[in-house]
Order: sequence, then C-alpha cells, then structure tokens
Amino acid sequence: MKYSQLFIQTLREVPSEAVIASHRLMLRSGMMRKIANGLFAYLPLGLRSFRKIENIIREEMEYIGSREIKPTVVIPAALWKESGRWHTMGESMLRVKNRLNDEFVVSPTAEEVATSIVKGELSSYKQLPVSIFQINTKYRDEIRPRYGVMRGREFVMKDAYSFHRNDSCLDAHYQAMGDAYRRVFSRCGLSVIAVKADSGAMGGDGSEEFMVESEIGDNTLLVCKECSIAANVEKAACKDDFSPAPDSVLTKNLPEVSKIDTPDAKTIPELCNFLKTDAKKFIKTLIYRAANVELDLKEASNGWAFKAEKRGSGLVYPEAFFAVCIRGDLDVNEVKLAAALKASEAALASDDDVMRITGAPVGFAGPVGLGSVPVIADKTVKYLYGGICGALEKDKHFINVEYGRDYKPFIVADLRTVKAGDACPVCGGVLYEKKGNELGHIFKLGFKYTKSMNVTYLDENGKAQTPIMGTYGIGVDRTLASVIEEHHDEAGIIWPMTVAPFHVHIVPVKYDGSVKEAADELAAQFNALNVETLLDDRPERPGVKFNDADLIGIPYRITIGEKNLGQNVPLVEVKKRTEKEAHTVPLKDCAAKIAEEVRLELAAFKTSAL
Amino acid sequence: MKYSQLFIQTLREVPSEAVIASHRLMLRSGMMRKIANGLFAYLPLGLRSFRKIENIIREEMEYIGSREIKPTVVIPAALWKESGRWHTMGESMLRVKNRLNDEFVVSPTAEEVATSIVKGELSSYKQLPVSIFQINTKYRDEIRPRYGVMRGREFVMKDAYSFHRNDSCLDAHYQAMGDAYRRVFSRCGLSVIAVKADSGAMGGDGSEEFMVESEIGDNTLLVCKECSIAANVEKAACKDDFSPAPDSVLTKNLPEVSKIDTPDAKTIPELCNFLKTDAKKFIKTLIYRAANVELDLKEASNGWAFKAEKRGSGLVYPEAFFAVCIRGDLDVNEVKLAAALKASEAALASDDDVMRITGAPVGFAGPVGLGSVPVIADKTVKYLYGGICGALEKDKHFINVEYGRDYKPFIVADLRTVKAGDACPVCGGVLYEKKGNELGHIFKLGFKYTKSMNVTYLDENGKAQTPIMGTYGIGVDRTLASVIEEHHDEAGIIWPMTVAPFHVHIVPVKYDGSVKEAADELAAQFNALNVETLLDDRPERPGVKFNDADLIGIPYRITIGEKNLGQNVPLVEVKKRTEKEAHTVPLKDCAAKIAEEVRLELAAFKTSAL
Repeated sequence: MKYSQLFIQTLREVPSEAVIASHRLMLRSGMMRKIANGLFAYLPLGLRSFRKIENIIREEMEYIGSREIKPTVVIPAALWKESGRWHTMGESMLRVKNRLNDEFVVSPTAEEVATSIVKGELSSYKQLPVSIFQINTKYRDEIRPRYGVMRGREFVMKDAYSFHRNDSCLDAHYQAMGDAYRRVFSRCGLSVIAVKADSGAMGGDGSEEFMVESEIGDNTLLVCKECSIAANVEKAACKDDFSPAPDSVLTKNLPEVSKIDTPDAKTIPELCNFLKTDAKKFIKTLIYRAANVELDLKEASNGWAFKAEKRGSGLVYPEAFFAVCIRGDLDVNEVKLAAALKASEAALASDDDVMRITGAPVGFAGPVGLGSVPVIADKTVKYLYGGICGALEKDKHFINVEYGRDYKPFIVADLRTVKAGDACPVCGGVLYEKKGNELGHIFKLGFKYTKSMNVTYLDENGKAQTPIMGTYGIGVDRTLASVIEEHHDEAGIIWPMTVAPFHVHIVPVKYDGSVKEAADELAAQFNALNVETLLDDRPERPGVKFNDADLIGIPYRITIGEKNLGQNVPLVEVKKRTEKEAHTVPLKDCAAKIAEEVRLELAAFKTSAL
Repeated sequence: MKYSQLFIQTLREVPSEAVIASHRLMLRSGMMRKIANGLFAYLPLGLRSFRKIENIIREEMEYIGSREIKPTVVIPAALWKESGRWHTMGESMLRVKNRLNDEFVVSPTAEEVATSIVKGELSSYKQLPVSIFQINTKYRDEIRPRYGVMRGREFVMKDAYSFHRNDSCLDAHYQAMGDAYRRVFSRCGLSVIAVKADSGAMGGDGSEEFMVESEIGDNTLLVCKECSIAANVEKAACKDDFSPAPDSVLTKNLPEVSKIDTPDAKTIPELCNFLKTDAKKFIKTLIYRAANVELDLKEASNGWAFKAEKRGSGLVYPEAFFAVCIRGDLDVNEVKLAAALKASEAALASDDDVMRITGAPVGFAGPVGLGSVPVIADKTVKYLYGGICGALEKDKHFINVEYGRDYKPFIVADLRTVKAGDACPVCGGVLYEKKGNELGHIFKLGFKYTKSMNVTYLDENGKAQTPIMGTYGIGVDRTLASVIEEHHDEAGIIWPMTVAPFHVHIVPVKYDGSVKEAADELAAQFNALNVETLLDDRPERPGVKFNDADLIGIPYRITIGEKNLGQNVPLVEVKKRTEKEAHTVPLKDCAAKIAEEVRLELAAFKTSAL
C-alpha cells in the first residue's frame, strides 16, 4: 500500500484533552478522529489494527466452539422488560422511540437478545451446550466520556453467551473462555492481570476480570505481594483479622449494656479520644438506601413496611432502607452491600431519612433497640466484644454491646472495603493497590435470564428444565488502546507484529529514479510473500518520513537510499521499531529474510487447528 | 465444522408472513431469525454467507483504491443540521436524545460524517482524490418492514464517498466504482440490471442503480426490447411522441381562446365524450404542493408570496404550490417534478388548496389566467395546438388554447411518467415493464455536501477550492437475500460457491463405525486443503439429512455409506446441488479432486492483485 493512497494525515500536535498516551498517539498517527464527545471514527490505518484484534478474538472464540451471530444493534424494549432490566439499567442505556411510538434500546449489552434467540431454538437437551458470540456496536451513554476510545460512548464489544445443562458443563466452558481470553491478550501483546472474584471471595471461580494496569484505570486492584493473586476492590476479601473469643470470655459474666453521655463527640476519632479507646471497639452503624432489592425481607425487622412489586418471576422492593454495622476502623463496600441485598444499587441515606429511621441526627445510629429497619452486619462485628455504638439519641452512646445478646442482625456478610496493607485471603501476604482498566470479563450468570425469560428444554425424561448461563465480554476499542498504552515510547507506537497495521514500512530516502525502482520492486516482493507493506511514496524530507515511521510504529522499517544501493552488492537498511540500531542487508535477500522473521513472529501466536 | 456444533435448527414450516423465497428459505435453513418487526438476527450459518459478501465488497473497494473507515453508528445531529438534512430526511430517520438532551441520529446513511471527516483532514490538492468506505449498521424506520432482510429496519450497507478536484477525476472513479459493483454482483452470482439515469435522461451518466428483477420489487423498470437499456420509472424518459407544428399551422390565423360550458363533465374521459375529441388535446392541469423547494421563485408568477428561509448556503421555500400542466393522456411523475423544483417532495394539493388557488373545485384548473401560483409545464404541452383546459370556473373550459400566446409557464421540463409501450429514448424500440429491487446505487453528488459543510482545499496557486463528490452504496442484506432469490428450487437454496456458507457438506448415512471414521478422515483432509466443510454428525435418518442438505444448499454433498465403502476400492457418492444426478468417486481421490474443483470455481471470480 502506498502511503499517499492510505488516507493518513499525521499530526505534530494534538488537542490538550488527549491526556493519555493511546489517545494522543491514535490522534497523532491518524488512526482515528473525534466525531463528537465520546464518539470516534477509525481511519484506515487504525481500522487495520482494529480488525486484526477483532479477528484474533473471533479465531479464539471459534476455537473453543463459540459460534458467531449478528443480532441487531437496535433492540426492542420488550425484551428488556421481560428480563426486568428496562427498569434497572439506569440512564446509561440509550432509549429510543420510533415513528410508531414503539420503544427500543441501542444495545449496551446483549444478554436479553441472546437469551431470546436461544429460547427460540432450544427444545432438547441434545442441543446443549450452546455458546454464541457477536462482535458488534454497543452504546453506553457515559456522562463524562474521556481518554479517547478507552472510555467512549459507542464502542465495539465481543460478547458471548453460553447455555448449559449443569454446573460442570458451565465450569468447563468458563475455563475454556478464560484460557481463550488469556490467548487473546497474549496474542495482542498485552500483560493482563486476571482478577477472580465471586461473592466477595478472592480465589473464587464465578467471575474473572481481565485488567491492564493503568494510571487512569477505573478499577482499584488489590494484589498480593506474596502469591500475586489480584482482586478488584469492589469485591476483594481479606484474611479475617478477628476471631471468636475464647470460652473464658463467653462464659464469664459480661457487663450489661449501659448508655453514656458523649457530649460533643460524634465521629469515631472524637469518641476514641473521649472514651480513651480504639476505633476497633466501635460498631459503626450507617443507614443505607437500596434500590430494586430482591432479597426477601418478609422476615426482617419491619421488612413488611417496604412496598414490594412483582417483576419477572419474583418480588422486588423498589426502595428499602437498612442499618449496616461494621467495625469502627473499616469502611462499607457498597458493591458488596448491594450484592448481599441483591439490589441494583446501595447508597448512604439522606440526613432526613437517618433522622426519621433512627430518631436522632447523623452520628448516633446503632443496632441496639433499632426496630425501624433491618440490620445488616459485616462479619467483623460478630466477634466484637464489649462494643460501642450510637444510642439512637443525640449525644448518647451504648457501651458493653454484645452481638446476639443485645442485637440480632437480619443477615451477616462480608461488607468491608479491603485496603492496601490488609492480609491476602489466600496466603496471608500483604496486599497492595494498583489502578486497572477492565478489558474483559467472564462471568457465571446462573439462571437470572433463563428464569426471568422462561427458557426451557426437555431432558432425557421429557421434563422441562432451565439451562444455566454464562456471559463473556471483551472491549475491542479498549484492547486496541491498551496495546498502545503498553507499547510506545516518546516517538510513537511500537506495534506487536500481530496487531500492527502493516508488517513492514519501506522508506525510500527520495522516491525517484533507481531508489523508486528498488522500493517498488521490494514492495512487490513483500506483497507476493503476503507481508503487509506500507511504502512511503511522499515527496517529503527523509526526516519527516522517519518521524512518521516512528510515530506509526510498524515493526520493520526498511530505508532505501542511493548510497547503499550503489554498493557492489546493493544494500538496504533494516531497523526494527523495538531496537535502537539499524543494520544493512543485501537488497536481494531482504524480502525473503524479513518475510521469514514476520512469519515466525506471527506463527508464535497462532492458535492451532481452527 | 460439525453440524451439532453450528447452532443450526432447520424448520419444516415457516410463518405465513414469509411470502418470498429468500425470507422463507433463510428462516427454514436457520440462517436467521426475527427479533421484532423489521429486525433480524443472523445465526451462524447465515452469518458465514453474509461475511463472504462483505469481504467480496471489501476486496473490490480496496482494489479500486477506496479505503475502509469506521465512523460511529450514532451520529450527532449537529452534522445533519449543517448539511440541512436534519429538516428534510423525514420520519424514516431515527432520532435520539441522550441523557444530556443532546440530539443524535442512528445513521441511515453517512454523507455528513464522511464529509466531515474528509473536511478535517483535507488541506492540499495533493491529497486528492480521496475515496473512503464503511461497511456498517444503518437504520431506517420503515413503516411497513417486510420480505425479511430484503426490507428491514436495521441493515448493513457498504457506503463509499469520494472527493475530487474536477469532473474528469470524479468520472474516472465513478466508472471504476461501476465496474467494481459489476464485479461484486457477478462474484455473488447475481444477474443485475444496471439502470443509468441523470436529470431524467436514460443513458445519462450521473447516476446508476443496480437492480435485480423481483416480483416484489420496489421499483418499476422500463426496459427496451431492442437495445436492452433500462431505466427506473421514477426517472425514465421516452422518445418524444410530439413535434413542433409545421410553419403552415403556426402562421395561419389561429382561433381565439373561448370559454365553453361543460356541464357534468369533469374528468378527461367525460370531456372527451362530451366534446367528441381525444385526451391528447387536453392541457391537464394539477395543483401540487412541494416541500423544501430550492428553485428560485422570485421571478415566478406570485412567487414572492411564498415564505423563504435561509438554510445552509441558500434560500429554501419550506412550502410552495404550483400548477403543473401535462398532455391529457399522460401522468405526472412526482419524482421528476420534485427534481425540476429542487424540492424534497411534491404531492397533489388538498381540495381546499385547489379551491383557494384556482377559485374553482377540483377539475377546472388551467393555466390560462392563473396568477396565484407558478405554472410548470411538461414539454408535451409546448407543442399542443388548440388545446383544452379548465377555465378556473365550475363547469367551464377553455378551447383553442395556445402555448406562449395564452399562457407562459415558469419552467418547462420532462415530467411525464413513462409507461410500457412508450418508445425507447435511445433507439425508439418499445419499452416494457419489469419490477426490480435496488441492491446498489452509484451517484455523482456534485457539491451538495462539500458546499453546505464548507469543505475546501488549497490548489496549486494557494487558492481555496471546493472538492466535487460522489456517493456509492450497496445493501449487504439485500444482496444476500437476492442471491437466494436467484438461486433456489423447491427443495432449498442452491449457493454459488463464492458465497456458500460451506463448500462441501459431508453426509454419513449413519455417523458410526467405519462410516464415522471415513467421514472424520475426509473432513480432516478437506480442512487441510482449506475447503470449508460441514459434517452432519447428527443421529438422524438419512432422509432427514438429505432434506436438510438440499435446504441449506451447500454446493457439494458427499454421502458416505457402508455399501460404497465396502467396495474393493472404497467409494463415496458426490452430488452437486446444481445437478440432479450423483456419481461415485474413490474415497482416496475425493478430497483432492473436489478441492481442485472448489479452487477453480473460486478462482474464476477472484479479482487479481489486491
């Protein structure tokens, strides 16, 4: 391909909004351009790499037996109403009405349509397992899109969905997906951190996120210094730093709860100071509002007071309040809390709600004698003896509070936010923090969609059964941007061969006379050998061409000049983008030699036998 | 690929709404499924053929130097406002507001975004010509989607846009596009009718539509029995069937216009009967309402009375009325009329408007003495001598009306609807009608977008110039459906090799024992030879498998049975989908022999040297 025919314009300067390397370099190299906030157009150079990533993903999906489908991008709202997510997806889902006033969604993800398609085809256990994927346009209405295609509004995602008869079949496919994802990222030249998590337990196997380290990452990761295992702070657990009291404590005559005056001491540090004690003695109690709670509250304290609605196959509380107890030195993790409540969202209640629920201003909540809302306890408070908590009265606290004796929570769960310095739940090593961006996610969904959308098949005995489901996504744009984040220097991109827009960049010092002839001939030789070649045919100074070659970052640069060509054995100069030094190669051997190197680099990453 | 791993379910019966062969067969063969009205999901079998068509188009675009880009599907309204089409696209364009109340469009076509991208990159004449294309999701909010993917709401279109310094450069690329389109359709095995048209003249070269004949076609084509040239009825011209009167007529003393009573005669047949004359003597006059008229009406009769608005670089009349005159035996072609008025739409005015404008009920309009609206004349009335027309009064007509003497139109144009039986404008042969579906369209746009969106480059003299533009589209879904329309029989699809989902279909009579071994081995041999193979591994009766093979329509079916395998030289049965009879081939030669046949069939269609 001749440079002049590629529709590529490199830039010396880029808009100041491009603060990360991939955004800057994708603009500077002419890979893409901004259409509007969060919307980008790939230009021919960028699209070549984009398609290579798509194809790597496609190959690895097909290799593990997932089959490509292509639903529409615009999806009828009816499917989202069937699953219940029409009400829970929030404003990031772009909703549209057509001329007939029918409602649609511009797909942010496709569990509904995939489930609906499989539902239509599935009749017998003989058809299972089924695994299908698409590589298609998605839209999420980010309020603050930024970092170029790393966090855009429209993007391309590979999303796969699998359906199985039982856990062991799902397990096997889930493992195969994880392996496929590892191969995808490895073939793209990416170092990923695989973050496992289920129900808040590190080392679980119900969900795995594939992260790349990034200073602008959305996610905080906790990584163990000893065993290297990593978890997302949203779900990370740590080793318990508490234990059941010895029997001697439990059997001795424990003092009764008593109410004390705590004038002017409202925060835990103030109270520690006032009572000369440690934050770990406090039962910190916070009032939370949760939305779309699916946990059954009928048996909970005052649970009957929350209004329930029938949605899909179950009951949902659109709004409910909870008192959440945790040890005074810790913070509540709202993602864990929402998971424990089976809620779409959990957030601190307003001051007015706190006043209404606890009968006191913020700062004096506590579980003892609180009848207005269910109490949810982090497991740290279960073994907290002689605790201190708010007394539901301004400037009053309870001391000598005992779990089980003085209050009984509705549920106990792991709700703490794990921090750097906490102990690894697997090996006890010290955890430290990293920022990461999620590129992919594999997840065992269970029966959420197959039940709400009523998918069944007949088993060997002719009995209707519900299949169990997994979901698996990779962001294509983010993967591309992350390759550049990991592979660049001051001068530009340094493409891994597998996703480089071209393999070889031929730079004639002057595209004229014998140099032009040699360059054209060499390009023709490369084409015949299936080596993708960019030939810089512009009438620019060599310095400009070299700068652009470094910026665009094609793995091999071959410089053709009169002097080297004029040698007894005509020579060309070969420079790898990854190396500082160039070396000369006889022109006549150049194509065959480099084609072989390219072939070897690509073959190293090939997944066999598709 | 094993059948059991393809996620394919064939159907014996299909919904009655599937009235055309491609819709029926795509459903029956499990190529696609309906998601909602006008929205379809391709399943793995269908997507394989779909991607092959995409790739054929992609290869042919790259071959002629057009480069692929990927803008977003969701496009900001601002670009459509800049071009002016925000106001003129009508309700088939799906408009969306996001959470920030910004307006967007789900792309129905992409002139705006392509022009905007090129505008951002273009500075010098050295960069021209530029040709870019995308293969991407489009959405048009059809009121009555039908015929499966032939007329869906969401579809995939290849759309290309080119930018040039001058007409001759545009001409050359336009010709290359036409040739590329012919190769695309030929490679897909399609017989297309190329319909040329510009400014209503057959044989022009400003626009070419690629049609396939179809009983449910949207388009009526007029094809010449003699020279085979074809035109869309919307734009078709015919040979003039009138001529200037001899001087003897023009110089003789013509009788004056006179008003006559025509009681109870309102329609042309009634008047013909009453006046004992021929419809060809009538100046049929119809009142039309046109929207978004760009024709300058300042000089027209009462033209100043229409309200004009400034839009983009020019003036537009959002609404204007016209009296359109045509010979009494002919019909007005509203597409031609809209083109003549440079309007987005032209339709008959309401009865009230007719009354207001002509001062008489419908049936008595005429150009003589009509001052309230501009008169637009079809060229047939120019040479109509001693004509008859309405007298702007109930039950009154004028006779002896002469063009130029008794009325002067604002413009004269070709406005007639050409019909079967009219004469070919090129050779005079008789025209006949066909129904056709448009698969592709190439069109010289001129400066419409580059001017309204203010695209310029500097020429050799440093002077700003506006590039001239072409636009070129192909519907991928329609092309796929049309291949099936052209290649099927009662039993199912008959795929051309180039777009078949697989090349070879292996049918073991029973997938077990030595038959299974032979089938697996043969499939492995084909895979090694890059022949795409479907192996029916289902425990179904042979009859079921054969029926499905015919339905799916893969070019070669290879049947493996115990009896043939048991011969001295083990045999398999080979049947081409295009042929009635099967023949036997030694198993050991089968893969090599058929691989060579497949290679030859594919090579015949390969566009060389990409």
